Amino acid sequence: MATRPDISQLPFANRLGMELKEAGPDKVVAAIAVKKEHCTVPDIMHGGAIMSLADTAGAVATVLNLPEGATTTTVESKTNFLAPIVLGDVATACCEPFHKGGKLMVWQTKITRGDGRLCAVVTQSQMVLQPKSS
Amino acid sequence: MATRPDISQLPFANRLGMELKEAGPDKVVAAIAVKKEHCTVPDIMHGGAIMSLADTAGAVATVLNLPEGATTTTVESKTNFLAPIVLGDVATACCEPFHKGGKLMVWQTKITRGDGRLCAVVTQSQMVLQPKSS
Amino acid sequence: MATRPDISQLPFANRLGMELKEAGPDKVVAAIAVKKEHCTVPDIMHGGAIMSLADTAGAVATVLNLPEGATTTTVESKTNFLAPIVLGDVATACCEPFHKGGKLMVWQTKITRGDGRLCAVVTQSQMVLQPKSS
Amino acid sequence: MATRPDISQLPFANRLGMELKEAGPDKVVAAIAVKKEHCTVPDIMHGGAIMSLADTAGAVATVLNLPEGATTTTVESKTNFLAPIVLGDVATACCEPFHKGGKLMVWQTKITRGDGRLCAVVTQSQMVLQPKSS
Repeated sequence: MATRPDISQLPFANRLGMELKEAGPDKVVAAIAVKKEHCTVPDIMHGGAIMSLADTAGAVATVLNLPEGATTTTVESKTNFLAPIVLGDVATACCEPFHKGGKLMVWQTKITRGDGRLCAVVTQSQMVLQPKSS
Repeated sequence: MATRPDISQLPFANRLGMELKEAGPDKVVAAIAVKKEHCTVPDIMHGGAIMSLADTAGAVATVLNLPEGATTTTVESKTNFLAPIVLGDVATACCEPFHKGGKLMVWQTKITRGDGRLCAVVTQSQMVLQPKSS
Repeated sequence: MATRPDISQLPFANRLGMELKEAGPDKVVAAIAVKKEHCTVPDIMHGGAIMSLADTAGAVATVLNLPEGATTTTVESKTNFLAPIVLGDVATACCEPFHKGGKLMVWQTKITRGDGRLCAVVTQSQMVLQPKSS
Repeated sequence: MATRPDISQLPFANRLGMELKEAGPDKVVAAIAVKKEHCTVPDIMHGGAIMSLADTAGAVATVLNLPEGATTTTVESKTNFLAPIVLGDVATACCEPFHKGGKLMVWQTKITRGDGRLCAVVTQSQMVLQPKSS
């Protein structure tokens, strides 16, 4: 099985200060402590930062399920924003599978804030790219 | 009418190095020059960075159409990823309206790279929040 | 509280042979027994029929939560298709809330087939339309 | 190249009274004359009927681009509803490609009513399923 990914090696995730809390083939949890740099005006977490957190969680989850030599790319991602996450809070993304197929995996990531309230839900499809002529 | 927004005042957009190229009520163009910090592994622009660029363009476009005193929030955003944008290239987002209603505005943003190829398409809904007791 | 809606009064839902199994403010269950007329080629349930089932479940769920005099309209709907539902099987949609706000409600509907397998997931936003000058 | 598909052979499309107006590899146009049976309450076209029309147009468009022996399935579909289509009007869907890849095709379908107003926009992804051992 795949080893735990080191997301500090992913420049964008790293720059956003994303932290991987849990990483198994059926559940990935990642978090961002919301600083000024993650915010829009007023001081709430920018939707793009929320989607970036979820997208990374879904990609990590897919990688943990890929067959040897295969890679993945996000083909689509849909987010519903439900409540704001304010500066100083922590956004936690929990990603779980809807479908883990040989060609496509579909993940749902729920983003909650410190008080446990659901703030966004992301559903994304990851294509599995098989190595050529393996 | 609203004046041209200064996105350098938006911390997250600013940190991503987003540049506003054009900002009218029916068309907003914004761009990011893709640096290492915007990338995943391999060196292509992270999906989250692409969605952040589009989300900002859609929010700016909405603000340019808001009635006096109103504010806006993104309620949903859907992205299809079509082609990669590599390190060193420029991602340009062009946002145009599908619907500009009193309660909801719907925008589509197309993200292209330097060679003109369409790399992602984002459709997002922005709720219009009226000031209380106006 | 709203009374149980009679979906046989909805022409399109009625024509599709939709049956309401359960209808409460936090859970709506509806089903379609898959006949030839619901199928594409080959004999599996048409994606449009699946989305119609979910859309109806989400609308019913919203109606059960509307304040007096208000109405609703679907503003967006996103479906991921995960597995086919064959002719002769029963498609069951279970709709539960992500968010029940005064202006917008967001619902997720999971469609399963007879063997319990998850076949589609639909997330939809319903706008709440307040009566004028009430 | 594929011949013009006969959608009267698709039971669900046929039952909805869908008519194929134009069918080329880069543009498919299909329409439904809105009768009582396509409506919800009040007498406007049910969102499910609109999504069914678009889904069929996107599937036909994909089939017209498939390599010999391949088949297709819709993996995801997202709709924004912008304006109602009333009983007696005609809903026309115009489907055009965002991406026609060997593994995935992405289509956008715009649904307009008789007065030309844009009523819904659907973006959908179709997976290309290659024949085994070809």
